Amino acid sequence: MIAAIEESPLYPIVNPKSIAFFGASNNFNRMGSIMLSSLVDLGYEGRIYPIHRTEKEVRGYKAYQSVEDLPETPDLAIIVLPTDVVCETMEACGRKGIKHAIVVSGGFKEVGPKGAHRQQKLERIADAYGIRFLGPNCLGVANLHLKLNPTPIPAEGPPGFVGLASQSGSFVTQMFNYLHRHGMGFSTALSVGNEANIDVVDCMEYLGACPNTKVIALYIEGIRRGRDFIHVARSITPHKPIVALYIGGSETGKRAGLSHTGALAGPDAVYDGIFRQSGVIRATTLSELFDFSLALGTLPKPRGNRVIIQTHSGGPGAAASDSLGRSGFELPLLSPDTIKKLRAILPKTASTNNPVDVTFSKNPLDDFSTIPDILLQEEHTDMLLVYFVSPEAFLHRSSGILGMPPEEVRHVAQQLVAQNIEIFFDVIKRYGKPVVGYTYRSLQEQMARGLLDHGIPVYQDPERAARAMAALIEYHRLREKIAAISTQELEDEPACAEG
Amino acid sequence: MIAAIEESPLYPIVNPKSIAFFGASNNFNRMGSIMLSSLVDLGYEGRIYPIHRTEKEVRGYKAYQSVEDLPETPDLAIIVLPTDVVCETMEACGRKGIKHAIVVSGGFKEVGPKGAHRQQKLERIADAYGIRFLGPNCLGVANLHLKLNPTPIPAEGPPGFVGLASQSGSFVTQMFNYLHRHGMGFSTALSVGNEANIDVVDCMEYLGACPNTKVIALYIEGIRRGRDFIHVARSITPHKPIVALYIGGSETGKRAGLSHTGALAGPDAVYDGIFRQSGVIRATTLSELFDFSLALGTLPKPRGNRVIIQTHSGGPGAAASDSLGRSGFELPLLSPDTIKKLRAILPKTASTNNPVDVTFSKNPLDDFSTIPDILLQEEHTDMLLVYFVSPEAFLHRSSGILGMPPEEVRHVAQQLVAQNIEIFFDVIKRYGKPVVGYTYRSLQEQMARGLLDHGIPVYQDPERAARAMAALIEYHRLREKIAAISTQELEDEPACAEG
Repeated sequence: MIAAIEESPLYPIVNPKSIAFFGASNNFNRMGSIMLSSLVDLGYEGRIYPIHRTEKEVRGYKAYQSVEDLPETPDLAIIVLPTDVVCETMEACGRKGIKHAIVVSGGFKEVGPKGAHRQQKLERIADAYGIRFLGPNCLGVANLHLKLNPTPIPAEGPPGFVGLASQSGSFVTQMFNYLHRHGMGFSTALSVGNEANIDVVDCMEYLGACPNTKVIALYIEGIRRGRDFIHVARSITPHKPIVALYIGGSETGKRAGLSHTGALAGPDAVYDGIFRQSGVIRATTLSELFDFSLALGTLPKPRGNRVIIQTHSGGPGAAASDSLGRSGFELPLLSPDTIKKLRAILPKTASTNNPVDVTFSKNPLDDFSTIPDILLQEEHTDMLLVYFVSPEAFLHRSSGILGMPPEEVRHVAQQLVAQNIEIFFDVIKRYGKPVVGYTYRSLQEQMARGLLDHGIPVYQDPERAARAMAALIEYHRLREKIAAISTQELEDEPACAEG
Repeated sequence: MIAAIEESPLYPIVNPKSIAFFGASNNFNRMGSIMLSSLVDLGYEGRIYPIHRTEKEVRGYKAYQSVEDLPETPDLAIIVLPTDVVCETMEACGRKGIKHAIVVSGGFKEVGPKGAHRQQKLERIADAYGIRFLGPNCLGVANLHLKLNPTPIPAEGPPGFVGLASQSGSFVTQMFNYLHRHGMGFSTALSVGNEANIDVVDCMEYLGACPNTKVIALYIEGIRRGRDFIHVARSITPHKPIVALYIGGSETGKRAGLSHTGALAGPDAVYDGIFRQSGVIRATTLSELFDFSLALGTLPKPRGNRVIIQTHSGGPGAAASDSLGRSGFELPLLSPDTIKKLRAILPKTASTNNPVDVTFSKNPLDDFSTIPDILLQEEHTDMLLVYFVSPEAFLHRSSGILGMPPEEVRHVAQQLVAQNIEIFFDVIKRYGKPVVGYTYRSLQEQMARGLLDHGIPVYQDPERAARAMAALIEYHRLREKIAAISTQELEDEPACAEG
């Protein structure tokens, strides 16, 4: 277990001050060139040294013929070269004194026995020079807080709180856009590839110590060090949630996992056991992995599983109720006091059952202020689930009819929505109860986007909201259990899945 | 059973040539005014007669003090008035000879015994004058093919092929945007409210006969005529798929269903039985209802359940494989002949297992032409599931680096993507096998949007794709079973859920 983040072999890989870049050129269709472009585009402020046999300059950076020619020993080497020259490049890095590397190149263990042999050679070279490295066959790292993104796809959105360790590089580089659209961002994302030297357990340990990471997401096709996984996860989950998507549970999934990174995929039940013992929340799909991450990274601890639904439409309320019921939540009836307070402001047709159906509020502002305020005061509830539509269309129309010019309508509507979001945020933060939204509109509309930007999770279906809320409950249940287990017990337990 | 669509009591409600509109005024915050605005905004070409005691003109239409003053007998009356005056208005409509109505107003059976009594009175008046009506407590109809949308929210997107009958008005009016974003549109959507006169079974019968409707979606909180439901559904499912979301399955969901339209929600297993016997596919969430509708409304009949996955990234391929496995699909290995053809064009690092991982294609155009062509030729496969990313970001960057002005880059990229979509569409239509896409990007980006606009379903997660594909398989399985049942057998079966 590391005592400080700097002790992690990943620290210089995630936070390099200088990078030797192998495989970028002025041929823009090469993977190395594409990856260097991403790095440059995001505005990485460290020193970049492209290494190229013939080019004098690559993307405006002075290029060096050989790593030996560099004016300093860089913190990190990124290697995106043809398979055949990877070992000799690693050796050259070693001679230069470089201690950390990312090997993007494929053609190793994942392609069969010949590749496995090549990978062993690579490992021996690294060991001989004391080099720690990610890969081979990976996409490396994205640390958006440092504007570090040497992965193929440009970063999108601000840095966030999701720390990812992934046995698929795609789920690093192809997810910037997804995370941003869904109200999140990576703190640091790590693609481990074949895990020849640094593996998912090392990443988990790093992310556990990383101050920017509020929740750890794992994409796993096979765990090589089962006992270490449990040990490290148990040291993290009492203070930081971990969510894992394990692919390999079905026969077909198992075959896909095998073909991808060459890791041995174990049976589903074993992984279930490992996760449960470690306090790790299991997701079934990639959407769930990040849905759960959003809830776990933003919501306070709920006191229990009683939820009030606030809606202004019957059907969406019933759908939420159904989803919550399926996920094991209780929908308590409101106390007479709460009903009395609501009745004073709601129209006759409104329902003060649970779901609370406010229908067509007399004052639409109440939906974001007085009503949630009353519902959060209710003693017999632990969480609030709110249905949101987009008021923009209404506002546009009614103002348009009144003869307001479109530009002014847009401005007024935007201001009003922004104001509603602020008011809502101010109300809910007073209670410390988890508040979750759902909508069938796009998350990119001002209402949902504004809530997400305020750290209020909004889901595109009440089912997704309910499952994420259930993951939150489950995390806090497991967390208490894990925290109660002594280190001694951990030591005594048999290993479960040494790969 | 109706022999022609014109026989349905819904025909004049869905296809009115003239409408008497009660409850719209020049006060734009009233529900009636909002609903009239939607109707006008979409460009309904029939005659509109606002009825208002004091206004002379409403939204540019001549207003009439009383329905008796109208110059003709309109096909339809839409009533959005306070509860107290609904009965007398219905009576006035009857005297005028109006035979069809939508009663939007609430305050009837859904509010308790007093409301139930009021509803009985309304029913008696309608019966006396031979009026057929939707509601009360509903949002009526949207027939986008006729530019008819007298519901509160403006319509979005072109008319489509999903016919909806819903016991929640929200799932009519609040879903225009959702359906359009997900590649669909309503043919006709019907909100049945309290079903005092016309119910879900009548709607199903209408939609079964509706030529614009390729798939029927139902949102159900309780079925009143169980035997009729089964009878009508069985007459439809052999030629048109029906998908149903039934809410009321959990205790909490049951309570929500009850509070909403006053229908008696039955136990989950009974509904399961009704749907299975009727050949109706059951959805668990609203997202599933429309995910299934998309697949059922666009895809041809698959010959079996063997799927090839085409991906260019390992993780997304493994995730799809896992989802397909969970939904009962087989992932066959490719035949030697197919592998040989692929090997000739794929890079060394590509995988010709299933998922077929094309990695970084030598010629990116192959991804949309030669590769799916080869995979669809494969004898041992019935369906193709393809992973899509958005090539725009790449194109922008590489062209940008080459010094092309941003406007030109955008133009070139758009043309290229549009061309890829056309080529892909031309390839897949030759084989008659279902082809489905998935992506983690927004469906509004050009690639996914273009595919959707060509009637190729694209889902935002392979899990959603796999479940929709499973619904397709299930529909064709049930359809054969239902088609084999004789009418006599139907007559002999006991009723299952008379409400």
